[in-house]
Amino acid sequence: MDRAPAGSLHAAAVLPAGGSGERLGGSIPKQFCTVLGRPLICHTLESFERVTWIKDIVVVVASENLDLMKTIVNKYGHKRITVVVGGETRHRSIFNGLKVFLDGQSLGSVIQKPEVVIIHDAVRPFVEEDILLQVAISARQYGAAGAVRPLVSTVIASSPEGCLDHSLERAKYRASEMPQAFLFDIIYQAYLKCTEYDLDFGTECLHLALEYSNTKAKLLEGPPDLWKVTYKRDLYAAESMIKERLSQHLCIITNINEEAIEVGFQLHENLKHHISHVKAISLSMYKTVQDLQNIFHGECYNFICINVKESDLEETCKLVDLLKNGKVTTSYPLVVISIHLTVPNCCSSDTQTLTGIRQLAKEAKKSNILVYGLLITYSKDASRLQESVCEGSSIITALIKVRNPALLGQIMTV
Amino acid sequence: MDRAPAGSLHAAAVLPAGGSGERLGGSIPKQFCTVLGRPLICHTLESFERVTWIKDIVVVVASENLDLMKTIVNKYGHKRITVVVGGETRHRSIFNGLKVFLDGQSLGSVIQKPEVVIIHDAVRPFVEEDILLQVAISARQYGAAGAVRPLVSTVIASSPEGCLDHSLERAKYRASEMPQAFLFDIIYQAYLKCTEYDLDFGTECLHLALEYSNTKAKLLEGPPDLWKVTYKRDLYAAESMIKERLSQHLCIITNINEEAIEVGFQLHENLKHHISHVKAISLSMYKTVQDLQNIFHGECYNFICINVKESDLEETCKLVDLLKNGKVTTSYPLVVISIHLTVPNCCSSDTQTLTGIRQLAKEAKKSNILVYGLLITYSKDASRLQESVCEGSSIITALIKVRNPALLGQIMTV
Repeated sequence: MDRAPAGSLHAAAVLPAGGSGERLGGSIPKQFCTVLGRPLICHTLESFERVTWIKDIVVVVASENLDLMKTIVNKYGHKRITVVVGGETRHRSIFNGLKVFLDGQSLGSVIQKPEVVIIHDAVRPFVEEDILLQVAISARQYGAAGAVRPLVSTVIASSPEGCLDHSLERAKYRASEMPQAFLFDIIYQAYLKCTEYDLDFGTECLHLALEYSNTKAKLLEGPPDLWKVTYKRDLYAAESMIKERLSQHLCIITNINEEAIEVGFQLHENLKHHISHVKAISLSMYKTVQDLQNIFHGECYNFICINVKESDLEETCKLVDLLKNGKVTTSYPLVVISIHLTVPNCCSSDTQTLTGIRQLAKEAKKSNILVYGLLITYSKDASRLQESVCEGSSIITALIKVRNPALLGQIMTV
Repeated sequence: MDRAPAGSLHAAAVLPAGGSGERLGGSIPKQFCTVLGRPLICHTLESFERVTWIKDIVVVVASENLDLMKTIVNKYGHKRITVVVGGETRHRSIFNGLKVFLDGQSLGSVIQKPEVVIIHDAVRPFVEEDILLQVAISARQYGAAGAVRPLVSTVIASSPEGCLDHSLERAKYRASEMPQAFLFDIIYQAYLKCTEYDLDFGTECLHLALEYSNTKAKLLEGPPDLWKVTYKRDLYAAESMIKERLSQHLCIITNINEEAIEVGFQLHENLKHHISHVKAISLSMYKTVQDLQNIFHGECYNFICINVKESDLEETCKLVDLLKNGKVTTSYPLVVISIHLTVPNCCSSDTQTLTGIRQLAKEAKKSNILVYGLLITYSKDASRLQESVCEGSSIITALIKVRNPALLGQIMTV
């Protein structure tokens, strides 16, 4: 395959987002359902925005959702997006999206006709740059390309009486997924030439390219995560998958106090069994949020901060301030767990810590940072300390994986 | 359709559970992956055990999982199950499962050949009695029947060069799902007559019935929840769907103290917005676990118990004891939230409550009951109380929906 560098590609994307969400059984179209605090479509847009060689992203929505979509683009700060109104059917919507690249001038927009156009569903949020690049490059070579997957179920044809007519041999067929990519002129000409019947009842862009532009699309095996969010269970799956991804990295921050270092070290050992990548740094090792992000190449969404004193929030406050000002918090909620060491059998009230953490958590929430507290009983007895740390690690893991805003500001105890 | 009462049906089920879980990317076959504390297959078995007219359930596993499966059946107390070893392929495994009904005698088992046999995948946990009855009754009438679903993706055929050959018109085809049902002799004869190629590479029982027993299966539109747990995301979806179902009902238990009743009433009002069915009863209204279960026809998995004093656990203990002894706790984790009222600005230590709840929670865990604590500040000021109750309701909802054992014994505060 022609593995030309992406830099030389002039590509754009059209994202049909006109679905009505009937199959979800809800009234909200699925692309606008909330997943981890943001509409599902925002997660898809972010996947495209990360890909620098895709110059323009055209989102096609039903007319009744035009304002909603524009609000979403503004509210969540999406870039390179043009929102247009679609047609009655999927094909009519995609066609409307394509026309924007030719009408660009008349809209006063700077959109230019691309060499390659990628078509992708708004309800397939987990599309990676790798498969986008593969379909784009194949489209340049073959004129059209699309991702496919093995069939999960056997496909059968029904007789008019609702009985089995015949079944297809599963291994000979594939499910056609997204993304697909086309040389712009090939798919545009196909849409110009196709019939009203195609526009009304067709579902497959690759078919139009074959039928009306005589172009046999290259089929590429895509990853399983390309699946289309169709049912309510798919929304659950999407949220869990994002949470899983956000829970891969954890940064433990300790000060140089001996007890804090000991607890930090033991937490590190324990948490390695629950979380893929755990790193510990001392307070003095970071000055800016960049220092923190460098640790995990910007992939860290979870921090624990070990304060020595029960009532001391200073170090957690410093961390939260850094994260707030670092503007790394726009898309996904960050988790900060403020750990405080306490001595065994001490019944000193933690009212002060409690109030402090709740106030901090309330403020931090505005910047999409979820702050929780954790009191760990610090014992000189090694096995008792180990027990507390072990239980604390389970709680930390749960807070990170669950990422539930209802519990923010709460103080857990072990 | 012949809607004969299920009582007159002599039906049995064969559940192929021999899959290797390759597509999940893990080493554990998906039917044995843990979902809410139990292997996925347990959830499927429970769906079948609920259906009284299915007399026998034959589970077919790979030989290396025979002991594991027998252990699971014992550990989780499954009934009417026979575990047998399968073959190299899906069809060979199902055939082995069917043979059990004829070899029943030689195994010293009481299994009898059924009139109708239902075939269902172990990795489709959400099968309801309604669709099982539909396929069974249709099988009696037509000889064979199976659940189908609309195709989510267009199905395409690939050329030898990996390019699009043609696409199928989506509306004309269906995905063949499970359950399927057959007159026993029809499917058994089909397996006897089919070729080695069928046994090695075939995927569709309905096809065998058509080809070798000349029986056109009736196709029935199934619900979306019949889908097959195939990828990791499907495990997430399954777990979330079960949690969602367990979170439908909540029972609030208060004593007759004025403050407790007031808080109970306000919680009731607030929680109705988060949880479909909320009922409040007073302590004196129940003596046995049956009294509690009657409230929601045995469907209640969530309880909150309002204790007046901060340190008083008596009423929560009584509830937990009842639930333990009532043996309602075998399959899904129950949630019990122990609510304690506290006065504003009181910094009295809650060490006592804390220790009490943690001990209670530790004990209750053994019976699959998750106990959490919640301190609500009781204020005479109506709006401040309302604020606490509102925040408390969010926490209660989160604890119920998240159902996370790592947080048990923790005390939340509002």
